[in-house]
Amino acid sequence: MPRYDVNELKKFVARFFVRLNVPPEDARVAAEVLVTADLRGVESHGVIRLHSYYGSRILQGLLDPVTMLRVVQETDTTLLLDAGNGLGMVAGYQAMRRCIQKAGQHGLAAVTVRNSNHYGIAGYYAMMALEEGMIGLSLTNSQPLVAPTYGRTRLLGTNPIAVAVPAGEGVRPFVLDMATSIVPIGRITVYQAKGQPIPAGWGVDHDGQMTTNPAEVLDGALMPLGGPDYLRGYKGYGLALVVDILCGVLSGGLFGSAVGQPHRPAGVGHFFAALRVDAFRDPRSFAADMQALLEELRNAPKEVGQERIYIHGEKEFEMAERYLQEGVPLLDSTVQALCQAAEQVGLQFDLQPLAD
Amino acid sequence: MPRYDVNELKKFVARFFVRLNVPPEDARVAAEVLVTADLRGVESHGVIRLHSYYGSRILQGLLDPVTMLRVVQETDTTLLLDAGNGLGMVAGYQAMRRCIQKAGQHGLAAVTVRNSNHYGIAGYYAMMALEEGMIGLSLTNSQPLVAPTYGRTRLLGTNPIAVAVPAGEGVRPFVLDMATSIVPIGRITVYQAKGQPIPAGWGVDHDGQMTTNPAEVLDGALMPLGGPDYLRGYKGYGLALVVDILCGVLSGGLFGSAVGQPHRPAGVGHFFAALRVDAFRDPRSFAADMQALLEELRNAPKEVGQERIYIHGEKEFEMAERYLQEGVPLLDSTVQALCQAAEQVGLQFDLQPLAD
Repeated sequence: MPRYDVNELKKFVARFFVRLNVPPEDARVAAEVLVTADLRGVESHGVIRLHSYYGSRILQGLLDPVTMLRVVQETDTTLLLDAGNGLGMVAGYQAMRRCIQKAGQHGLAAVTVRNSNHYGIAGYYAMMALEEGMIGLSLTNSQPLVAPTYGRTRLLGTNPIAVAVPAGEGVRPFVLDMATSIVPIGRITVYQAKGQPIPAGWGVDHDGQMTTNPAEVLDGALMPLGGPDYLRGYKGYGLALVVDILCGVLSGGLFGSAVGQPHRPAGVGHFFAALRVDAFRDPRSFAADMQALLEELRNAPKEVGQERIYIHGEKEFEMAERYLQEGVPLLDSTVQALCQAAEQVGLQFDLQPLAD
Repeated sequence: MPRYDVNELKKFVARFFVRLNVPPEDARVAAEVLVTADLRGVESHGVIRLHSYYGSRILQGLLDPVTMLRVVQETDTTLLLDAGNGLGMVAGYQAMRRCIQKAGQHGLAAVTVRNSNHYGIAGYYAMMALEEGMIGLSLTNSQPLVAPTYGRTRLLGTNPIAVAVPAGEGVRPFVLDMATSIVPIGRITVYQAKGQPIPAGWGVDHDGQMTTNPAEVLDGALMPLGGPDYLRGYKGYGLALVVDILCGVLSGGLFGSAVGQPHRPAGVGHFFAALRVDAFRDPRSFAADMQALLEELRNAPKEVGQERIYIHGEKEFEMAERYLQEGVPLLDSTVQALCQAAEQVGLQFDLQPLAD
């Protein structure tokens, strides 16, 4: 795969957004969030979406390039923002900044955002808390793709949960960033393209029956984390519902199957929280205990045939460190999407891949 | 099964605790929490534990019958309590009360508790928030039973997550109360006793390999929610770890495999949060949207062969309503455990079952 310099890629993405009348500072933020997804190996939420999620929606008038955040209701520790159908990345970034500010003053804070759009990787915003020595939480609802347990239609999004916890100076933090479905819909498409069956449990057909045929899931729905009843899929369904309640219902925005419909404003909602570790205990003792816990897991006996027990976020940090040096590898389909996006706004995707 | 009057059962349980030198008001709280578990059909966390989790540990000097809560650190919105190795139910109840008070004044609040014991059902404390029109969160760590993904030993508890959300006056709330393992260890024991194989995915043997033999899981470990890697068990593992971090590490208590060892104080930690709905929006509009979301789920097309899509907590509320009228059915093994517990403290379990 051709590899591209991270900063050059960010600059290109920001240029793309500016051409769409996104203010330069917002374009920089959006580029930062999207390229960070590619850097962490979450390509599905990165620059490959430039055209489909952002460019084409701005050009169609379905997404406002200028993100006008409006305070709807505010207390010392809580805040409800209306994102005015602006960019999810900008809304998410600003909302989490406000959340961190409030938590800094009052110990903890929670912010909900309504009337927003796809915000990229949930983990980005949770991780913003780390620099301030806080624990961060980031949730978002999204277009319906998941059937509730015993259902057969798409009612809930893959509604991710991201939690970031600092583990001390120079030590990799714990970063959980997970969809509440088992896999994203893109994973099903990949199997379909390859003509391969999917594992039983990832999705159901239009009768709500588990199937290993990817085409039937594309015509049916994803299963929530846990999968079938005997493995307790109702828990993943419950977690997806909690996310929708905090992002959609608490914000006074859209929820359930109304979120993220293709031909109207997406009405996505987010929920953020930040918690000061030092409100509870000395951050150095906290960090020492975090390290002890993570070390106990890393050093524990492995499943036969496995060599490593991973901490959440670890793989992604390793990947990001490598890609920062070597450049971010982009799939052919991603490069194509970037060319298409560029063309859309009268630019050229003229970045040269790095030499080996 | 013989059925017992709920209030009589609570009185008996309170008497039992008083005999163990638990102050009467604390005994009432502990009885209330434990019997509520039976009432909601979560027998595994109810009065069946009277002897094993509480009575015998108090008698052995491993659990202090007088719960002396000490404030370790406090801000307007945060609180760290040390439960002095007292009763988990009392510590949980008092901590959540303080959390709700603080949230009432400041919009939201979070409380951690260390040096506590098994607190019964996590959902009890989350539900306390409902009466005040708040969203409640309750987490606890617990004795290690779950292997991390790619591990083979018991490092994390079944660390439950409970979230309660009000849905308006006279409308059943949403109450998610889930272990972050697929099933509790007691479920494995039941299959072993019946000589039946367990479904693949519930647990691993001492090599970390999935097994359908319950005896091998009892010698191995439970799997986290999600189960095997191809169904994304690392997400359940991550959620269990978040619970341990908030309950064990943030509180300065025990974490990982150190929690809940049989022959010393359990050192269990809890985490509670409460969030005022009206800090974000009008509670009536919130309730109306909650009802709309839950109705959309209830009324959605069902999986072929299923007649109902459940909302979390619904089955338990229906059960509790029935048992309040008809009495709580107790398993033979539970009645035996109650007799044993009674004898332990020089009482008799002399409750008469209700007539049919």
